[in-house]
Amino acid sequence: MDDEGVEERVTALENRVRQLEDQLAVMRLINSWGPAVDTGSSQQAAGLWDQDGVLDSDLSRLEGPAAVSAMVESEGQRALIAQGCAHVQSAPVITVEGDRAAATSYSQVFLHSKEGHEVWRVSANHWECRRTPDGWRLTKRLNRVIDGTSASSTVLAHAFTATL
Amino acid sequence: MDDEGVEERVTALENRVRQLEDQLAVMRLINSWGPAVDTGSSQQAAGLWDQDGVLDSDLSRLEGPAAVSAMVESEGQRALIAQGCAHVQSAPVITVEGDRAAATSYSQVFLHSKEGHEVWRVSANHWECRRTPDGWRLTKRLNRVIDGTSASSTVLAHAFTATL
Amino acid sequence: MDDEGVEERVTALENRVRQLEDQLAVMRLINSWGPAVDTGSSQQAAGLWDQDGVLDSDLSRLEGPAAVSAMVESEGQRALIAQGCAHVQSAPVITVEGDRAAATSYSQVFLHSKEGHEVWRVSANHWECRRTPDGWRLTKRLNRVIDGTSASSTVLAHAFTATL
Repeated sequence: MDDEGVEERVTALENRVRQLEDQLAVMRLINSWGPAVDTGSSQQAAGLWDQDGVLDSDLSRLEGPAAVSAMVESEGQRALIAQGCAHVQSAPVITVEGDRAAATSYSQVFLHSKEGHEVWRVSANHWECRRTPDGWRLTKRLNRVIDGTSASSTVLAHAFTATL
Repeated sequence: MDDEGVEERVTALENRVRQLEDQLAVMRLINSWGPAVDTGSSQQAAGLWDQDGVLDSDLSRLEGPAAVSAMVESEGQRALIAQGCAHVQSAPVITVEGDRAAATSYSQVFLHSKEGHEVWRVSANHWECRRTPDGWRLTKRLNRVIDGTSASSTVLAHAFTATL
Repeated sequence: MDDEGVEERVTALENRVRQLEDQLAVMRLINSWGPAVDTGSSQQAAGLWDQDGVLDSDLSRLEGPAAVSAMVESEGQRALIAQGCAHVQSAPVITVEGDRAAATSYSQVFLHSKEGHEVWRVSANHWECRRTPDGWRLTKRLNRVIDGTSASSTVLAHAFTATL
């Protein structure tokens, strides 16, 4: 047997497995956002973000974990939680390159109402993440409501053009 | 080449690949629930569950595969299917440890209506599974409607606190 | 150390890793559909399809990438985009066998409205794909609205019966 051949194959496998782990880690990061904000877990929500992370939506612009935490503890978010809200992400289109990743997803916010639940807001999302010593963290989220204007289209187009 | 080094790396890879396979298997298990109940496939729905599995929702408490099967064949579920229903799961936050796994997800039930479809119910879900000789099976599902009360919040918090 | 033993284990790992990569590639393919059609990216939408691919829904039957492209550029689709539309896929149940794959998912189309967003259409989907020299491509999509008739049930049942 050619020992070097096996070692090369093992190295190749290690790289491929890391890619797969990274994709699932990014998916987990994005899917953790909803449970954090819908339970008012400001610390958990903030902990998903990199120190320099920016959440840029048409509702607000949050810079850094502390701003994320403050949003989760805000009166507005508390009112949504008291009504019953669900921030649901669709399964994203993920691209991982080295220590950077990008993902495109749809998000839906459902609110409890007398008749059941209503769809309050459907948005386009572009996420960026980086690998830190503590695991993957969010560095950027662009969030634009899908209302027929071009802003959401620009966000969704990242699914095809993401460069890291 | 250091043969022992390669063997250790192969063993490490086997463990990492198993983790990835387990995560996708758990995802598949959870995503199979909707197609089973929406087609009235009572046997398929029951087959997702462990013998000791419990589905605990604010609508009912089902203990074991036979109770799941009976629910799928019930008049209530038949009425939902006749109207047109879709039990949709969001991509879950999954934690696998050895032969146990936990997952947190949102579920939405859409019902067909004259104007299109309405969102009947949006819920928080905590799932637990175990590895059996026949593959992963559900051992527990907590399901609570998201209506502003604390029950759903407790369920969603499992995304951050799941211990197996 | 038994060299042949290690080589066998590496070969087994390569097959398992390929399975995992294939599953994530199929997921990415399916999740790319929404961003393509909601941004009017006809070329990107067409590029997801195999030359012989067929999109068979209760709204239309599209044969081949050119037909897909024409649909995305159609007046009807442009009107949906101008209103604000989101074609969201649920996380699918995926089966990969060699160079073929099948997946079952729910899709929801949300439309922007004065009150927020409405659920226009919830459907059952069965997808088939094949591995090409350029990566995985869609060969078939069956899409049936979930309205209580048996057509959507037949599509969803593929989650349990898919043979490739």
